[in-house]
Amino acid sequence: MSKLTDVPKRILIGRALRSDRLGETLLPKRIALPVFASDPLSSVAYAPGEVLLVLSIAGVSAYHFSPWIAVAVVVLMFTVVASYRQNVHAYPSGGGDYEVAGTNLGPRAGLTVASALLVDYVLTVAVSISSGVENLGSAVPFVVEHKVACAVGIIVLLTLMNLRGVKESGKLFAIPTYVFVTGVFLMIAWGAFRGVVLDETMASPTADYEIKPEHEGLAGFALVFLLLRAFSSGCAALTGVEAISNGVPAFRKPKSRNAATTLAMMGLLAVTMFCGIIALAMATNVHMAENPAKDLFHDGVPVGGDYVQHPVIAQVAAAVFGEDTFFFVLLAAATALVLFLAANTAYNGFPLLGSILAQDRYLPRQLHTRGDRLAFSNGIVLLAGAAALLVWVYGADSTRLIQLYIVGVFVAFTLSQTGMVRHWNRHLRTETDRAKRRHMLRSRAINAFGAFFTGLVLVVVLVTKFTHGAWVALLGMVIFYATMSVIRRHYDRVADEIAAPEGPSDDMVRPSRVHSIVLVSKIHRPTLRALAYAKLMRTDTLEALSVNVDAAETRALNAEWERRGIDVPLKVLDSPYREITRPIIEYVKNLRRESPRDAVSVIIPEYVVGHWYEQLLHNQSALRLKGRLLFTPGVMVTSVPYQLQSSEAAKKRARKRSEWNAPGSVRRGPAVEPGKESSKQP
Amino acid sequence: MSKLTDVPKRILIGRALRSDRLGETLLPKRIALPVFASDPLSSVAYAPGEVLLVLSIAGVSAYHFSPWIAVAVVVLMFTVVASYRQNVHAYPSGGGDYEVAGTNLGPRAGLTVASALLVDYVLTVAVSISSGVENLGSAVPFVVEHKVACAVGIIVLLTLMNLRGVKESGKLFAIPTYVFVTGVFLMIAWGAFRGVVLDETMASPTADYEIKPEHEGLAGFALVFLLLRAFSSGCAALTGVEAISNGVPAFRKPKSRNAATTLAMMGLLAVTMFCGIIALAMATNVHMAENPAKDLFHDGVPVGGDYVQHPVIAQVAAAVFGEDTFFFVLLAAATALVLFLAANTAYNGFPLLGSILAQDRYLPRQLHTRGDRLAFSNGIVLLAGAAALLVWVYGADSTRLIQLYIVGVFVAFTLSQTGMVRHWNRHLRTETDRAKRRHMLRSRAINAFGAFFTGLVLVVVLVTKFTHGAWVALLGMVIFYATMSVIRRHYDRVADEIAAPEGPSDDMVRPSRVHSIVLVSKIHRPTLRALAYAKLMRTDTLEALSVNVDAAETRALNAEWERRGIDVPLKVLDSPYREITRPIIEYVKNLRRESPRDAVSVIIPEYVVGHWYEQLLHNQSALRLKGRLLFTPGVMVTSVPYQLQSSEAAKKRARKRSEWNAPGSVRRGPAVEPGKESSKQP
Repeated sequence: MSKLTDVPKRILIGRALRSDRLGETLLPKRIALPVFASDPLSSVAYAPGEVLLVLSIAGVSAYHFSPWIAVAVVVLMFTVVASYRQNVHAYPSGGGDYEVAGTNLGPRAGLTVASALLVDYVLTVAVSISSGVENLGSAVPFVVEHKVACAVGIIVLLTLMNLRGVKESGKLFAIPTYVFVTGVFLMIAWGAFRGVVLDETMASPTADYEIKPEHEGLAGFALVFLLLRAFSSGCAALTGVEAISNGVPAFRKPKSRNAATTLAMMGLLAVTMFCGIIALAMATNVHMAENPAKDLFHDGVPVGGDYVQHPVIAQVAAAVFGEDTFFFVLLAAATALVLFLAANTAYNGFPLLGSILAQDRYLPRQLHTRGDRLAFSNGIVLLAGAAALLVWVYGADSTRLIQLYIVGVFVAFTLSQTGMVRHWNRHLRTETDRAKRRHMLRSRAINAFGAFFTGLVLVVVLVTKFTHGAWVALLGMVIFYATMSVIRRHYDRVADEIAAPEGPSDDMVRPSRVHSIVLVSKIHRPTLRALAYAKLMRTDTLEALSVNVDAAETRALNAEWERRGIDVPLKVLDSPYREITRPIIEYVKNLRRESPRDAVSVIIPEYVVGHWYEQLLHNQSALRLKGRLLFTPGVMVTSVPYQLQSSEAAKKRARKRSEWNAPGSVRRGPAVEPGKESSKQP
Repeated sequence: MSKLTDVPKRILIGRALRSDRLGETLLPKRIALPVFASDPLSSVAYAPGEVLLVLSIAGVSAYHFSPWIAVAVVVLMFTVVASYRQNVHAYPSGGGDYEVAGTNLGPRAGLTVASALLVDYVLTVAVSISSGVENLGSAVPFVVEHKVACAVGIIVLLTLMNLRGVKESGKLFAIPTYVFVTGVFLMIAWGAFRGVVLDETMASPTADYEIKPEHEGLAGFALVFLLLRAFSSGCAALTGVEAISNGVPAFRKPKSRNAATTLAMMGLLAVTMFCGIIALAMATNVHMAENPAKDLFHDGVPVGGDYVQHPVIAQVAAAVFGEDTFFFVLLAAATALVLFLAANTAYNGFPLLGSILAQDRYLPRQLHTRGDRLAFSNGIVLLAGAAALLVWVYGADSTRLIQLYIVGVFVAFTLSQTGMVRHWNRHLRTETDRAKRRHMLRSRAINAFGAFFTGLVLVVVLVTKFTHGAWVALLGMVIFYATMSVIRRHYDRVADEIAAPEGPSDDMVRPSRVHSIVLVSKIHRPTLRALAYAKLMRTDTLEALSVNVDAAETRALNAEWERRGIDVPLKVLDSPYREITRPIIEYVKNLRRESPRDAVSVIIPEYVVGHWYEQLLHNQSALRLKGRLLFTPGVMVTSVPYQLQSSEAAKKRARKRSEWNAPGSVRRGPAVEPGKESSKQP
């Protein structure tokens, strides 16, 4: 373990963890906040802009509704945070919304929540990276000129990082997140100071642009619909709030209380930043249009297709700090970085949720095993592939991608809160302690209001955004749901089929004898070893079996067999078509037919080589044969490996792989100590 | 075997062959000709045109050299045919040029020939299909407007056909080939009749076009170089002549004589058609240019980029039969079909050569086994992929592709003929019989002239075409050569490493004891079966091993183990990180460390399912574990399969697959009868 090549890794990610040091990996609040909240906090980089974009459809005069929409978002945020504070107390195991919905509303609800969250993870990656590229592009034009390429490039980078098993590091998350939050607050404070105290006029880069309303003089139902759509877009600020409730086990003790406090802090920071940015956007006269190319005018002419509409946060920063000043560039960089971290959050959350789903047999079992690299890799590649596809299809345009977002989150919110109401109902039925009952009644009220409000928002989102792209998200959910149902049904069917019967059964009754067959092609070390091992097994009969593919070779084999005096009878099967598999299968089947109560043990000498391309050159017929033999009842197949020198390389690789860090390990808290139960099943 | 689904297959491709009926599959000459000669015969569809194209560089006046070039090609063709008639007598085993060169000039020469032929197979597909599309396009404009797509489409079609194992059928080959040959002869005869007897003037569609020479008034060395280049292009008519020499075993007896006769017939047909088409092209004033867009003029203006230059055979047919007449369309269709059959020839020849190379361990061993579907599939996909790439890169332009062609063929010709000279030298050293010596001397003279002439042509081709594309073919040859050398070296190294030592060795010495371990995750039928089989083996010790990933499950396992009173001790390993592989590997390694002379037998219960997607849901940890265990010395791994109901589906699929027809089986003749040697090794 003290290899030289390990030194850089040690320096980068620290010593490999031992179980007795696990306590140290628990997160203090100041680190948990950036780890879990980079997603909701970073969404203030795009959510305010989306509100303005939608309002612009009715013309710039509609912008004066934006404070009201901000208020609605704030109320919603407080509701959701208050609701989830109940969740983390009631379900500290980290199952999150999936567990809450599954336990209280049944497995179908749980699976719906899970599908919604999986889709949302994909969208978190797509939206956050697209928005990050746009923000970075406000300072570095090159990036926004090659938007799709840059966005896909960053997805690839994050994917490779996570495939290699770079561990989420609390400190690494903390710095950009705190720089970003500080920067936004500084901007709000400095803007307020300049505007209110100094009474300066700050003008955003688009202050003297005009917007041509797509629908002039909207009123009545149409206006209400537009406002609701703007509100839906603003709700993007709420994505990722549920992350903390999945991460309770990663907090220091008292886990639930600390998680609840962190939630409150996160909510407070998010709404303050959200409102501050909206207010500054109003004050600095930011003009944004849904289709800037034709609806945004400068000096009376449309800005045209080449125009790049910078995010509202960048425009505000340009107005407050001045364009291309140090603070402007720093904030743009920090914003982009936080958004990329938010995307990385999904890389950790997706396999984490996957492992919980695998435990309930909705996904392949091996996902459940922590540190099963291959299984996690598949999840990561699936996530990255889906996100990259969306980024490509939607041209890395965060505005268009946000239309797909939010649906999933609010499905999860609504079902989870409804589940919580049921939870309290159940507990109230048995609880007699006055104080506790009062507490529960209060919690139930909060969750009921949360369920009602998020449910309402879900309907609003569905109605206002269905045709704009929400249908894609719903389709994704349906696909996940269907796939997971099929997998679960398969596992259930197999479990029934293989359930051990009570009392003695066919499987328990010993076959009477075992007939051993060693497959031989030539006499070399692997064959000799296989013969030696076969003899050790002391089965009832033992013979060597070869297939005559080339008459000359077979003659040579026979001669050498005799010359060496090998004390195992050698049988040669004829094969007029130079096949190997078929004659052997036929021979084994014949043996079984002659004595159906006997088992056949087929022993295959195998080379073990070090590289996949060497593997292609060996064992192919053996592998094929093994595959076919496994379908023959009453047969067992033994591989006797012979390690070639080159296999050392593969051994080293395998050892390295086993030190891999599974994504999501920081957020799911330390592995369970042996002897303690891992997590409840819904 | 009498399943209902087999009926259509029976109807389509006939009953499955039994060894005693093999004789019937031997080819009579009239069928062997189309099977083996579709490639050289079809090349008259493009070779004459290529000659004119190159000559046009010096202007239309250079066309009057074309009869001389035709004469040179005819002489070359007779030389090659005469040479190969010697080959088929001397080497009737079907190894072809590879065998001749390898046996007489050493393995490097053999490998060079093999590389050249492999490249040539790829080019046969690319050139034939591109030319076929162009010929078809003379009747169906749509095809030539979507040239690349059509060509790739036909490659895909041929690939699928060959992957499914559709057998080459002599009759299927015969009809279009004979229609094509008859059609061309009819055209020549009718053209001669109209021109000479009726004294009519026949005008090709391009008769009144003019050619702007790229180099006016070429003379001296430049002219000679141009003529040599035109001759090189004309040599495309010779590709595929060697096919018959690879196919001698497929002929009826007397095999060699029949093959030699077929060769002569093929040569005669090819040169007659070649000369006839050149003569008709002269008579009907065909005008072709290398760059028609700028060098071909109609009424004084360049024809431009949209102009489609039809193949010479189509232009001549239009002149003789009239455009869009029945005969014109029939000939175009037959030409295209024969060209596609020529491409299919490569689909059969490529894996056939591959299997011979595999026998000599230049390619993965499994290619040698007849009917190993997977191995053949890889070869077919490689061939198709390379051909499709070339077609795509060169825009399915047969003229540009032909620049790459021919190099490989003439490398093979030259080395093979040189090898034959050595062959006769060797035999003359020992032969004393007068008549036989005379015969050998004559053969040697023919082969020596053949070697000299083809060698000269090779130099001409290399010099005139290197920069035009021949370098690509050479690069391909180098890649094949290097890959095959590396594979051979690997096999040789492994063979040395595993060679059985004389006398008793480590491998032959029995380990003293075997310690058996049955892996258990739950108690179900597969586990019970594995335990029952393990007990049958009567090894020295036996225990069951489980990994504690979930404490509750482990407790349940322990309780049921006791309740059922299973008489095998159950050991549980702790796994704080929920890993499965590592604790087991460590345990096994420990066992080996404690008693290094003992072997460990790890017995794994496995589910056998029917579909690959089910496979993904099961056995993954078992597979991973097996992979790791094989690297641990002194360990053998036994799979005890438990067949789930769904495995029936896979069994049926496997049975179906085993009835697959390997490509190349018709041309390599029947499989060897048991007890007879298959083929000589060089």
